[in-house]
Amino acid sequence: MNPDTRAKLMTVSTATLCTALFKRGLRNQFIQDVRPLNPGLPNMVGPAYTMRYIPAREDLNPIGVFLDPKHPQRVGVEECPEGAVMVIDSRKDARAASAGGILVARLMQRGVAGIVTDGGFRDSPDIARYTMPAYHTRPSAPTNLTLHQALDLNVPIGCGDVAVWPGDIVVGDAEGVIVVPAHLADEVAAEAVEMTAFEDFVQEEVMKGRPIIGLYPPTLEQSRIDFAAWRVAKGR
Amino acid sequence: MNPDTRAKLMTVSTATLCTALFKRGLRNQFIQDVRPLNPGLPNMVGPAYTMRYIPAREDLNPIGVFLDPKHPQRVGVEECPEGAVMVIDSRKDARAASAGGILVARLMQRGVAGIVTDGGFRDSPDIARYTMPAYHTRPSAPTNLTLHQALDLNVPIGCGDVAVWPGDIVVGDAEGVIVVPAHLADEVAAEAVEMTAFEDFVQEEVMKGRPIIGLYPPTLEQSRIDFAAWRVAKGR
Amino acid sequence: MNPDTRAKLMTVSTATLCTALFKRGLRNQFIQDVRPLNPGLPNMVGPAYTMRYIPAREDLNPIGVFLDPKHPQRVGVEECPEGAVMVIDSRKDARAASAGGILVARLMQRGVAGIVTDGGFRDSPDIARYTMPAYHTRPSAPTNLTLHQALDLNVPIGCGDVAVWPGDIVVGDAEGVIVVPAHLADEVAAEAVEMTAFEDFVQEEVMKGRPIIGLYPPTLEQSRIDFAAWRVAKGR
Amino acid sequence: MNPDTRAKLMTVSTATLCTALFKRGLRNQFIQDVRPLNPGLPNMVGPAYTMRYIPAREDLNPIGVFLDPKHPQRVGVEECPEGAVMVIDSRKDARAASAGGILVARLMQRGVAGIVTDGGFRDSPDIARYTMPAYHTRPSAPTNLTLHQALDLNVPIGCGDVAVWPGDIVVGDAEGVIVVPAHLADEVAAEAVEMTAFEDFVQEEVMKGRPIIGLYPPTLEQSRIDFAAWRVAKGR
Amino acid sequence: MNPDTRAKLMTVSTATLCTALFKRGLRNQFIQDVRPLNPGLPNMVGPAYTMRYIPAREDLNPIGVFLDPKHPQRVGVEECPEGAVMVIDSRKDARAASAGGILVARLMQRGVAGIVTDGGFRDSPDIARYTMPAYHTRPSAPTNLTLHQALDLNVPIGCGDVAVWPGDIVVGDAEGVIVVPAHLADEVAAEAVEMTAFEDFVQEEVMKGRPIIGLYPPTLEQSRIDFAAWRVAKGR
Amino acid sequence: MNPDTRAKLMTVSTATLCTALFKRGLRNQFIQDVRPLNPGLPNMVGPAYTMRYIPAREDLNPIGVFLDPKHPQRVGVEECPEGAVMVIDSRKDARAASAGGILVARLMQRGVAGIVTDGGFRDSPDIARYTMPAYHTRPSAPTNLTLHQALDLNVPIGCGDVAVWPGDIVVGDAEGVIVVPAHLADEVAAEAVEMTAFEDFVQEEVMKGRPIIGLYPPTLEQSRIDFAAWRVAKGR
Repeated sequence: MNPDTRAKLMTVSTATLCTALFKRGLRNQFIQDVRPLNPGLPNMVGPAYTMRYIPAREDLNPIGVFLDPKHPQRVGVEECPEGAVMVIDSRKDARAASAGGILVARLMQRGVAGIVTDGGFRDSPDIARYTMPAYHTRPSAPTNLTLHQALDLNVPIGCGDVAVWPGDIVVGDAEGVIVVPAHLADEVAAEAVEMTAFEDFVQEEVMKGRPIIGLYPPTLEQSRIDFAAWRVAKGR
Repeated sequence: MNPDTRAKLMTVSTATLCTALFKRGLRNQFIQDVRPLNPGLPNMVGPAYTMRYIPAREDLNPIGVFLDPKHPQRVGVEECPEGAVMVIDSRKDARAASAGGILVARLMQRGVAGIVTDGGFRDSPDIARYTMPAYHTRPSAPTNLTLHQALDLNVPIGCGDVAVWPGDIVVGDAEGVIVVPAHLADEVAAEAVEMTAFEDFVQEEVMKGRPIIGLYPPTLEQSRIDFAAWRVAKGR
Repeated sequence: MNPDTRAKLMTVSTATLCTALFKRGLRNQFIQDVRPLNPGLPNMVGPAYTMRYIPAREDLNPIGVFLDPKHPQRVGVEECPEGAVMVIDSRKDARAASAGGILVARLMQRGVAGIVTDGGFRDSPDIARYTMPAYHTRPSAPTNLTLHQALDLNVPIGCGDVAVWPGDIVVGDAEGVIVVPAHLADEVAAEAVEMTAFEDFVQEEVMKGRPIIGLYPPTLEQSRIDFAAWRVAKGR
Repeated sequence: MNPDTRAKLMTVSTATLCTALFKRGLRNQFIQDVRPLNPGLPNMVGPAYTMRYIPAREDLNPIGVFLDPKHPQRVGVEECPEGAVMVIDSRKDARAASAGGILVARLMQRGVAGIVTDGGFRDSPDIARYTMPAYHTRPSAPTNLTLHQALDLNVPIGCGDVAVWPGDIVVGDAEGVIVVPAHLADEVAAEAVEMTAFEDFVQEEVMKGRPIIGLYPPTLEQSRIDFAAWRVAKGR
Repeated sequence: MNPDTRAKLMTVSTATLCTALFKRGLRNQFIQDVRPLNPGLPNMVGPAYTMRYIPAREDLNPIGVFLDPKHPQRVGVEECPEGAVMVIDSRKDARAASAGGILVARLMQRGVAGIVTDGGFRDSPDIARYTMPAYHTRPSAPTNLTLHQALDLNVPIGCGDVAVWPGDIVVGDAEGVIVVPAHLADEVAAEAVEMTAFEDFVQEEVMKGRPIIGLYPPTLEQSRIDFAAWRVAKGR
Repeated sequence: MNPDTRAKLMTVSTATLCTALFKRGLRNQFIQDVRPLNPGLPNMVGPAYTMRYIPAREDLNPIGVFLDPKHPQRVGVEECPEGAVMVIDSRKDARAASAGGILVARLMQRGVAGIVTDGGFRDSPDIARYTMPAYHTRPSAPTNLTLHQALDLNVPIGCGDVAVWPGDIVVGDAEGVIVVPAHLADEVAAEAVEMTAFEDFVQEEVMKGRPIIGLYPPTLEQSRIDFAAWRVAKGR
């Protein structure tokens, strides 16, 4: 992802990106049923770095496993690249945590762009105060060892019913998280910026009282004329 | 609904209305599992204007369908009467949006009283800032075309497991949404105002330390005496 | 529970308590899928006082049942001990309320420490403003009579898939609620205070940029030395 | 329940009983989502004898608990009256067994009329060959100790979202299980026998090609005449 | 649908039809989570005739509604065309019945090709013995009036998350039910017959021990040669 | 697994194995919510060979992917060892198939011991007639490409909420499927054979009318004496 694409994706919504992907035949890129713990932050944008959990078997997951410096969860937290988004496959099971406040803080300090799980975080009240975006299904205090064993780093996974391939561009806003296939990121970002300009124009017009038919989409010539004028006036 | 009934319904809670309907044998009028995007607003009150979605078949729902000025979703947004509440049957499926920020803004500008879906809205962070009440299950960025095809306007529907007949009086507060059958609206509104006066009295007494037994319900004569005095003092 | 244990439990998180119980072979003490209505409050700590609902049969649950001063729900609200936490088995069914604002207010006035249901509360916007912690699944306006009949007080129950025995110590924070078996409360509280000191130290170090491997858990000698120094410096 | 009522209930369907109870305002007496393991048997009819499970806490439920001759599950199996139906509240959780082949065999040998759980049975292939009706949600091999602790015998419970009071008359057929409140059993049984006669008549007529309008219900005079003749002819 | 298409669809599986539709971009035509009550019958094939239920409001659905000869459920049963398949939108709610044995018998006698609901049937043991195919989610004894109000006949509906338009060709086998859009029925039937011939050939080869790679799909020239010979030999 | 262990596991039930594992602290080895398509077969026993699906992205999963002889699904079908059990992680999503009749036939012909998915099979009526055991959640006709992309072979996975490590011993009977960790297979098989002998003895006694208390478990000395005699008499 070039820096320009990242900058563009900071300015568009996951809803707009969904539509851009829908036009390309990709109907299932929005991670289902996750929400931001800290919804007031700017967009989260970065390539996916993934972690895969499988169900925890009791004998393999005593509290002592974290004494091992090679434990995948701990390795992942140190190796997730700066600017990346860690995406965790928790099999949509929020009955135990996917990670907690300390690990998420470490990711934040290392310059990671955000974290997403289709399970839940513990220490969620702390994470809600962090400046790195985090998304989950619901708070979950039990240690991950209760139900989750970290197994793989940076392999293709499912998260919230969406395929996530390492390097896909993950974008989050206050609504949720979308996964943009890597090879489409540049063109989708560019299109989404254009779509956002038009939607901002439409929103302004609607707030002034204009009907949507003929305006959204702009089937009336006048709508297109007005939008062109608006772009000039706004410098967009 | 006469203006007086609307005014009354602005002052009572969905919980009180549930009880008033329960007394009349209607046990299933509270829309399940929807919540307000903007919970700080006054009550939402208005007659139901409905829209029905069915599952979207891919070939019938390309992005181009909105070029048709007769598309039911767009027609509905322009025809929903001022003061009405648009209620959408999304088959409790929030995996794609029921509507987005621009359409909801248009409804608001047209003077519609509110909007309810048993699915989800996209652009939910925007809608959360609007001054028209909106209720859904959870945010959902994918365009409605992904899973929903708008089919009918103003027919009887189900929404959150509740029957909604056009013209039923829909009331929302920070707790959720209740559907009051049209023919009961006046009497239920009147009764709910009375119940609310009593509940406010009880709440005050409880906060002063009074036990609930004998007070709520007022099986003790003294409770009824005190309430009568309270009404006089409060002018209610 | 001695006062010292209560004081300790006011200072630790449910996440830390989960880990302390996990170490003792108790993997399933966190009540699933409940959340605080008023998350800004101090911890909720107190012994469990339970109420058990069964499904309501229509003929046994007309509105008039509350005229009976012996109705278990009303008796429970008056008999739940000061300092206790009322925990309600609502069979994870939030389609009707477990209790409402007036009853919760009465509990608060009586000095009860908090209330938990695996169903929902009505008058939830009011309860959200109370100073007594309350936890539920989601708001639910219908009167409890719609679906729930209060049957037993202070018997062992299930709540959110967790066994709750009367007298177990119930602790809630902004994340959720955990049930600590009564006989373990003192030792778990003590251990959790120690764990919290260590986690606070780790969090500080992480925010300064220190890696977690070797620090959390402190497999490096230096981590233990630094923690010892930190404790002296902080007086913990 | 008098023997005559039992005999009548052996000849009617749960569907017919549902309608008879619906007419009396009882809409929620059919146990949801249970099915017979051995659907070829005659009806199951008997008064409810209940067992209540709560979630199992690990330290209270080692395998050794069954050494205790007072363990409620084992006591229940020996004390459930001959002719009764054991109904188990498993909190709709079939992830571990409610009972297994040996206990169910013991009930059968003791003359118990049947067994119902809203969880699952283990040894289900054996139970499927028994001559005592058994109903559950799905097979479940894990021992009940994994998730269930037997706590109470013969108290009111919920089973499959239905209230079950000890002594209620439980009727099962190949479709499922219904709970008839004890005080209504005689009248409902009598009415169901009448309804069944009429439905059998209608079924015969329909199979001969007669339309249902005017026949079912018999709004046409001719339908009532024909039914009267049919009853005479059939001796019913 | 011409008679030839019907004949072809009698000989192919829903699995094969799913693949034929998948190739045309239709990924969501298999009705989810329904199963045959009588799986030993020939395929069910016919154009869809639909019925739409909404949630039942208590005051609108007393037992007496069936006295009205215009009640949509009864009208539908008499008007569903011979050779059609009745498809019912029960909002995936099987807690009460969609229809019962008498109505299904009437449809069968009238020459209807089959019936499908995404809810449940009552009198299911009877229906399981009928010679007309019937599909549902699970048996459900309560009368439809408990939860369902029949509202519309032959409008577009959702059934098991699939769009069903009147006239779409509905095909059922022992696996389940698929909805073929009307305009595609002829071509899809023809293609499915071809695919079935090939799959039958492959199945025979596999049973003789041939590996699937190169055979299925037939990327090896030899596979195509052998299939051509097989067709000649079999006269298909 | 030595041949003796396999032979033993052919004679014991998944229920007995669950208890043997429960005694060793393994509470979560029974695959949840799968059932046999062909329940009349002997037990399924073999080491796990796994396949992992992730959600299918549309552009990566056109029908043409099977032209690739390296497609993991097809490779897995040819490489799964004779005597092994193929276990598929379908993320508990049965909306599209995990595999179909031809692939399952190929596995059977290759001498594979069985197949398990926590999704569904297509061509399930055919598979139900095979002599190789197959387990799934429910029939599902849509091609796997609709929702599943095969990614990995023989890596640790989750299946029905259970951890499955390659080489774990998978046992299926008419009740369901259990996963025995590889290192425990010999001792658990031996113990299960012993337990089965005792349970068979108990079952016989119960069928003669003996009470379970003191017999099961055999806390009475007489029970142990009788069992010893029974073993001699039966040669077990």
